[in-house]
Amino acid sequence: MADAKVKDFPKKGETDARLRSFIERVERLEAEKAELAEDIKEIYGEAKVNGYDPKIMRKIVRMRKMDVEKRREEEALIDVYKLAVGLD
Amino acid sequence: MADAKVKDFPKKGETDARLRSFIERVERLEAEKAELAEDIKEIYGEAKVNGYDPKIMRKIVRMRKMDVEKRREEEALIDVYKLAVGLD
Repeated sequence: MADAKVKDFPKKGETDARLRSFIERVERLEAEKAELAEDIKEIYGEAKVNGYDPKIMRKIVRMRKMDVEKRREEEALIDVYKLAVGLD
Repeated sequence: MADAKVKDFPKKGETDARLRSFIERVERLEAEKAELAEDIKEIYGEAKVNGYDPKIMRKIVRMRKMDVEKRREEEALIDVYKLAVGLD
């Protein structure tokens, strides 16, 4: 569970209850985020076992997030620059 | 909903169903992660309205994640280095 990863504040410390509550809320969500990141890593691992290259997949995920026009523009520009510096 | 943010693959393209499924799973989790990041931002915003400094809070969250001994060691070292370069 996400909560298990969240530290307790000192019980009898003079912590500001309101600030503590904000921090704890952030920490709970951060723990959930970390779990999702872990799940994502597992999917890439599973894909790798199935013969897919995780590095390339990450590039694909990034590309699919982009606006199509922006992506094509960028790809065209990369080709131009590659040519310019002799990258074949 | 998280799913709304996930793009559809071309319906009649010759995409590899397995690869597509991996990518879609990753994208779904990435969308959830993005939502959590948004929620976290909102908490910091709420804290700010209540007079707390989000930048300092982020430092506190980072510190609480650290091993206590490691953190104290680092803090001591920072003091030493500050002294060494005349940071007061």
